[in-house]
Amino acid sequence: MSASLPRALAAEAVGTALLVATVVGSGVMAERLAGGNGALALLGNTLATGAMLVVLILMFSPLSGAHFNPAVSLVFALRRELPTRRLAPYVAVQIAGAVAGALLAHAMFELPILQASTNVRTGAAQWLSEFVATFGLVGAILCTLRARASAVAYVAGLYISAAYWFTASTSFANPAVTVARSLTDTFSGIQPGNVAAFVAAQVVGAVAALVFFAWLLAGGGEQSHCTRLKRPSERNSKVPAAAAASHFSVDER
Amino acid sequence: MSASLPRALAAEAVGTALLVATVVGSGVMAERLAGGNGALALLGNTLATGAMLVVLILMFSPLSGAHFNPAVSLVFALRRELPTRRLAPYVAVQIAGAVAGALLAHAMFELPILQASTNVRTGAAQWLSEFVATFGLVGAILCTLRARASAVAYVAGLYISAAYWFTASTSFANPAVTVARSLTDTFSGIQPGNVAAFVAAQVVGAVAALVFFAWLLAGGGEQSHCTRLKRPSERNSKVPAAAAASHFSVDER
Amino acid sequence: MSASLPRALAAEAVGTALLVATVVGSGVMAERLAGGNGALALLGNTLATGAMLVVLILMFSPLSGAHFNPAVSLVFALRRELPTRRLAPYVAVQIAGAVAGALLAHAMFELPILQASTNVRTGAAQWLSEFVATFGLVGAILCTLRARASAVAYVAGLYISAAYWFTASTSFANPAVTVARSLTDTFSGIQPGNVAAFVAAQVVGAVAALVFFAWLLAGGGEQSHCTRLKRPSERNSKVPAAAAASHFSVDER
Amino acid sequence: MSASLPRALAAEAVGTALLVATVVGSGVMAERLAGGNGALALLGNTLATGAMLVVLILMFSPLSGAHFNPAVSLVFALRRELPTRRLAPYVAVQIAGAVAGALLAHAMFELPILQASTNVRTGAAQWLSEFVATFGLVGAILCTLRARASAVAYVAGLYISAAYWFTASTSFANPAVTVARSLTDTFSGIQPGNVAAFVAAQVVGAVAALVFFAWLLAGGGEQSHCTRLKRPSERNSKVPAAAAASHFSVDER
Repeated sequence: MSASLPRALAAEAVGTALLVATVVGSGVMAERLAGGNGALALLGNTLATGAMLVVLILMFSPLSGAHFNPAVSLVFALRRELPTRRLAPYVAVQIAGAVAGALLAHAMFELPILQASTNVRTGAAQWLSEFVATFGLVGAILCTLRARASAVAYVAGLYISAAYWFTASTSFANPAVTVARSLTDTFSGIQPGNVAAFVAAQVVGAVAALVFFAWLLAGGGEQSHCTRLKRPSERNSKVPAAAAASHFSVDER
Repeated sequence: MSASLPRALAAEAVGTALLVATVVGSGVMAERLAGGNGALALLGNTLATGAMLVVLILMFSPLSGAHFNPAVSLVFALRRELPTRRLAPYVAVQIAGAVAGALLAHAMFELPILQASTNVRTGAAQWLSEFVATFGLVGAILCTLRARASAVAYVAGLYISAAYWFTASTSFANPAVTVARSLTDTFSGIQPGNVAAFVAAQVVGAVAALVFFAWLLAGGGEQSHCTRLKRPSERNSKVPAAAAASHFSVDER
Repeated sequence: MSASLPRALAAEAVGTALLVATVVGSGVMAERLAGGNGALALLGNTLATGAMLVVLILMFSPLSGAHFNPAVSLVFALRRELPTRRLAPYVAVQIAGAVAGALLAHAMFELPILQASTNVRTGAAQWLSEFVATFGLVGAILCTLRARASAVAYVAGLYISAAYWFTASTSFANPAVTVARSLTDTFSGIQPGNVAAFVAAQVVGAVAALVFFAWLLAGGGEQSHCTRLKRPSERNSKVPAAAAASHFSVDER
Repeated sequence: MSASLPRALAAEAVGTALLVATVVGSGVMAERLAGGNGALALLGNTLATGAMLVVLILMFSPLSGAHFNPAVSLVFALRRELPTRRLAPYVAVQIAGAVAGALLAHAMFELPILQASTNVRTGAAQWLSEFVATFGLVGAILCTLRARASAVAYVAGLYISAAYWFTASTSFANPAVTVARSLTDTFSGIQPGNVAAFVAAQVVGAVAALVFFAWLLAGGGEQSHCTRLKRPSERNSKVPAAAAASHFSVDER
């Protein structure tokens, strides 16, 4: 038990670093190769980010919960699923790891290590996008954890892949990643002056999701919905609850 | 139990809203970035839609069945797997959610909130496409629910990803989504006057699938086919039936 | 039992029809939209075909084995996992379904229903490609069925997605699909005069895989390798064998 | 037992050959079709490679562990999970298979069978990229094997898909593949004189990962972390440990 907090923090730091190295690095690679076509650049950036997110959550969730995201850690702390005293160290190493990941990407691509973004991302539509992106991410995590915990890694990766395209801000949805992306003047950057408002929108979105999905998922014990499926044959079967939970038909409650 | 219908309706509304926000929003993003190349635009639109569909079904299926689609709800009501008195409220909130999702996408992309599409989609070939698209979607759901319920989310997402490309209409396959897409004059829109015929083709396709697959899947209890695999070692194993069901070899029946 | 052969044949026919409708239809869509860029066209074609293959195998494998491919049915017949008297009807409905699928795609895209391809695909390098493509496909199916039957649908879809790109022929790997593709003068077509050699190369590849993988997989009962993993804790665990089978480390045998 | 070493070596040889045939072949196909757009070419190359890696690991892991990579075999030998006397034959057949795969790709695409690459890939940034790529690959394998062995094939395929984009070297991360890619003067080649430094960076990255992740994963028996999840209801449930392991929330240790 004594070794556990250092290991959890190491997992959060290394995971967030690899996540940001992927976001920034694949943005550089994609922009270099895309010949000016923004859709192609975003496609490469999306593919790499979504894939890496699945990998990192599968790797690190048994060690630290695989948050890599202060907004997610905040939600779990508020739900008392992360001990409150762990919140500050989690957020600290997430930010430190994220910044290290951006610098690592610069080193791999022979760019100046220290940069500041000049990419303007501001305005109400951008903030709405970040609110929606983070609301959906937190909701996806909470719902999936409840019914099909083994699918969370895939859900998070697929959600972010979609959100890169359906929100106008390309879905940062993560305060630590937002801070780190202010330190790269490449495809995925955000001007430092625009960071605070993005982070605020993300936190508001995360807390709104916490409240809404707490109501939506209320009304039973763990995986309660999974045990209310219509057919008796399934209710008593030995099929894991997680498998049964995706059943389309529901009974009247 | 008293809270359950409101929660199911909230799940259908929010899920359908996020689905349409993804369809419309990713269409706007993809078209803006694609530099006039339609294949690139459709690629971005497909990726986002397919990924989000998987996420939403995994999130909401334990709460409402995760239909997000009046044609699917109709089929389940006709099969008596959705209580008949739930059909009307389901369809109502699906349409309301879908419209809200389109407006949300407009807000995120700083477009006029209220629009009407000028995108002409009509003619026998388009209607045939919608018939095929919905027939296949309903068939995919019914077959997979029977044999491997835990895979339905992936099947629906992959099916729609393929159907965006193999049908000439890019597979709306959903009356609520069709209505909402008439309210956006962007990549994914459909002229309001073309909606009724699309919806009719979708409903006919869904009912045709209901009839055909009821025959195809008849002849046994739940997951009956899964228990008829050739090898005795598997028949008695503790491997979940859902896993065994995809076995390629079959015995003579 | 009396209804079972008709249902298996219906599953093979409908499945193969949807597969070819996807191959041909997505080829037409992709070529129309790609603005002359062959890589973009192949990308759309690949995405749709791979996704649909996963869907169709998950849908139909409990009913018919989900072969959709005379070369695969031949291999299972030779392995006595498909009753020999079923081989001819399987192949007949696969070809009929495949042809119907091509015609359906033409109807959806408002093309002349009856066509003959002018797409020349011939020569030793193309035939080698078809040999390799079919050898790999049959090997992938046989190995995965042995160790992780529940993953076969994903393996087949991913294999074909890769094979569209790594073989010079874009991997037809299926005699029924090859015949049907001779009837479309679009992106995915093959000149009728080139069909016989393709089919021959596919059959030789399938039989070579049957022989090689029979040797490779010999030496034990069902899933024998899965029970020889190194760690005693796993050998006795209740984790399904299919899950344990992908373990990387092996002991000395 | 007597047949087992030959079969394991055959699995490693055939698997590595198909992997390199995919890397080289899809690179040729993608470059031919992409019309000079590097992002499109890399997209096709990534898609094929990632998909094939998943397929090959699912196929061959019960037979040989599905390493296909001398750096991975070295790590397992150092961890005593591969018998030391197997290391040399494993590496030998991996290199032989890799070279055969490159030649096979040339034959399929009607290129001169024997070639030497003129593609310069050198310098500190490239070597750092290979270090990072291999460190992450080995880490992903070790962590996932511990907590969710059944997901290793997907993790490896997704990791390499991401790493093609986020490292400046496009992630060779495999000494056998690097040697073979020096023998093709196409998209995926590397000049023979640049091979040694790449291999050195890969081996250093692999050993660094071995050390770091041994520490990170220390502190308990097999899957120890999976049994430390917060909620008592899960700790005693019959859900497979692999499924429970991806839970986001963790308790204080």
